Amino acid sequence: MGSPCFTVALWDGFSITPEGVAPVATVRVHNRSALNQLLRQGDMGFGDAFSSGGVSVEGDLVAMLVAAFSVPEPQRIARVVKQMQQRKPRANTHDGSRENIHHHYDIGNDFYRLWLDKEMQYTCAYFPEAEMSIEAAQQAKMDHVCRKLQLRPGDRVAEAGCGWGGLARHMALNYGATVSSWNVSAEQVQYASERAKAEGYSDRVTYVLDDYRNITGEYDVFVSVGMLEHVGRDNYAELGSVVDRGLTQDGRALVHTIGRNRPRLMNAWIEKRIFPGAYPPTLKEMMDIFEPHRFSVLDVENLRLHYAQTLAHWLARYDAARDQIRDQFDDDFTRAWRLYLAGSQAAFLVGGLQLFQVLFTRERNNNLPSSRQHLYR
Amino acid sequence: MGSPCFTVALWDGFSITPEGVAPVATVRVHNRSALNQLLRQGDMGFGDAFSSGGVSVEGDLVAMLVAAFSVPEPQRIARVVKQMQQRKPRANTHDGSRENIHHHYDIGNDFYRLWLDKEMQYTCAYFPEAEMSIEAAQQAKMDHVCRKLQLRPGDRVAEAGCGWGGLARHMALNYGATVSSWNVSAEQVQYASERAKAEGYSDRVTYVLDDYRNITGEYDVFVSVGMLEHVGRDNYAELGSVVDRGLTQDGRALVHTIGRNRPRLMNAWIEKRIFPGAYPPTLKEMMDIFEPHRFSVLDVENLRLHYAQTLAHWLARYDAARDQIRDQFDDDFTRAWRLYLAGSQAAFLVGGLQLFQVLFTRERNNNLPSSRQHLYR
Repeated sequence: MGSPCFTVALWDGFSITPEGVAPVATVRVHNRSALNQLLRQGDMGFGDAFSSGGVSVEGDLVAMLVAAFSVPEPQRIARVVKQMQQRKPRANTHDGSRENIHHHYDIGNDFYRLWLDKEMQYTCAYFPEAEMSIEAAQQAKMDHVCRKLQLRPGDRVAEAGCGWGGLARHMALNYGATVSSWNVSAEQVQYASERAKAEGYSDRVTYVLDDYRNITGEYDVFVSVGMLEHVGRDNYAELGSVVDRGLTQDGRALVHTIGRNRPRLMNAWIEKRIFPGAYPPTLKEMMDIFEPHRFSVLDVENLRLHYAQTLAHWLARYDAARDQIRDQFDDDFTRAWRLYLAGSQAAFLVGGLQLFQVLFTRERNNNLPSSRQHLYR
Repeated sequence: MGSPCFTVALWDGFSITPEGVAPVATVRVHNRSALNQLLRQGDMGFGDAFSSGGVSVEGDLVAMLVAAFSVPEPQRIARVVKQMQQRKPRANTHDGSRENIHHHYDIGNDFYRLWLDKEMQYTCAYFPEAEMSIEAAQQAKMDHVCRKLQLRPGDRVAEAGCGWGGLARHMALNYGATVSSWNVSAEQVQYASERAKAEGYSDRVTYVLDDYRNITGEYDVFVSVGMLEHVGRDNYAELGSVVDRGLTQDGRALVHTIGRNRPRLMNAWIEKRIFPGAYPPTLKEMMDIFEPHRFSVLDVENLRLHYAQTLAHWLARYDAARDQIRDQFDDDFTRAWRLYLAGSQAAFLVGGLQLFQVLFTRERNNNLPSSRQHLYR
């Protein structure tokens, strides 16, 4: 991919523009302190300087980040090795998890409502047709998950990490399931429970403010969409135990997560400022959920470009809601979140991040559909 | 699953029948030496004693093996650990591979023709509808693979391990591809080449009698169906290098293999008498093909029960051709192969073996279909 094709312009008029290619954007460094941050702290410095306004980007932010993520391989590898040696995500003990999740998800439901879809789905949508709206694509994602799980009326579902409760609601109202959903975010659980009560389905969906490790009971279906990123590598076998403890002999289970093609820590700035404790696993690392418990992986689908598309929708809504966001938060926060959304979109576009949906059952379950045709009717 | 529900009857009239369940078969032990083999050598002893006629099975052989594979967990685990310590599959060096493959695939094309389909597909078929014939299901398998690979006219395909050449022929004649297929079995390559010449497609398919590690050239598609079982764990990264060396930026690649949910050596008797050097990997182990080269896994499909169904067809044809097989081979061989087919069917039925199809591309390839819908039209 060659060198990043954007211009860098310093406060004193000095600038560097790549030769032979039209720059997609200009990165303006407004003062000596911001330059210092960039040079000494890499991704972390760029994120912080962008948030504080010491660095700004004119032009297409996503395209600029795609270019920045395209620096030659050897440099990236060296950087990764260095990162692995220096950093470790914040621990996901029971207390640690609660704190890490609080940091991100308890910012305020009003904030997320400004740029998510109406079901408040804060995970990768599914765009089988490119021109779908984000509303339709989030519905399609939920249906895709329910079909993979062959969800039937009367099924008892355990959900680990339920966000604002949209998937549980969808499973109960559209598939006749009875759902118990665990989540350690107090604001999310409160929102979800109040909605269930107000809309009259609280007899079929129970939102539990507790750690997924405390899931109890027997269930026909286990589902976790967008939680594994917060589980931490050390806890995958334990997550497998939670499923093994409660899943019936013919039960179906699905984990949906951001992932990697090769092991690598989360971007340092994102992990520190946006998502403490987050780690996107490789498929190889994910196997620690399944192998010790002899689960059989039936289907893995990689929806990487669907997440890039999801993030493009979120970013457009975020930008459209800029004035309302500025009323709620300061400029640093507003810029930081914009960079996080744009940076994530760029990472999915260049393949730095993947999105894996993994369907699995017990090894001895022979009650399986004869093909995946039923997903595509 | 409890105890194996078959009767064991010794030569002197002594017999043990399980209580409370109807036995699915009777295992007859005809002499003291056979009993000794069973007691002292486990799977190996059973296989050898069955082949030599010292042990025979009355009733449903597959059901008896399913029952035998269902002994309680703790014993199996202890046995596996012991196996792992004691055995190592024969090495798959260049010379070793040639010898291992010769042992199995150069028995004589006439033998395989008696019980395989007309395209001589000696790998898992695909039965999207349960009532399909083995002929139709092997065609469906080849189409399923070609669709996953989005095979287009003019595509250059490298195939690693081509059997009797059926998939390469299918890709050339039905999809307009140009295929080079590598195989170290002299009989198979001769058969495939003669057929290509006789039927007039030798300008579009080249069968090469050589090791997959010597694959050269640039190709749009890499495919390997049923070879990884013979590659050996130590060589997965090198297989990845072979793909990495030749695949175009937008190229697609697929590996189809027998696998496991947990690491375990091949059944000792099968590895020794039928498939020297064979090892079915777990998905975790397979990742050594992809991760070092930054390949992006797009789709994993587990076709376990399709292989059980394939083997049921093969076993029925094998039994129907018994007289012709006895004309070609001795009784020991005839019984050994019957046990191998029945045992494999049982292993797929109880989940001891899996069948993984893994589709992958380079990380930076964004030229992907928006869903898997195109596989199911």
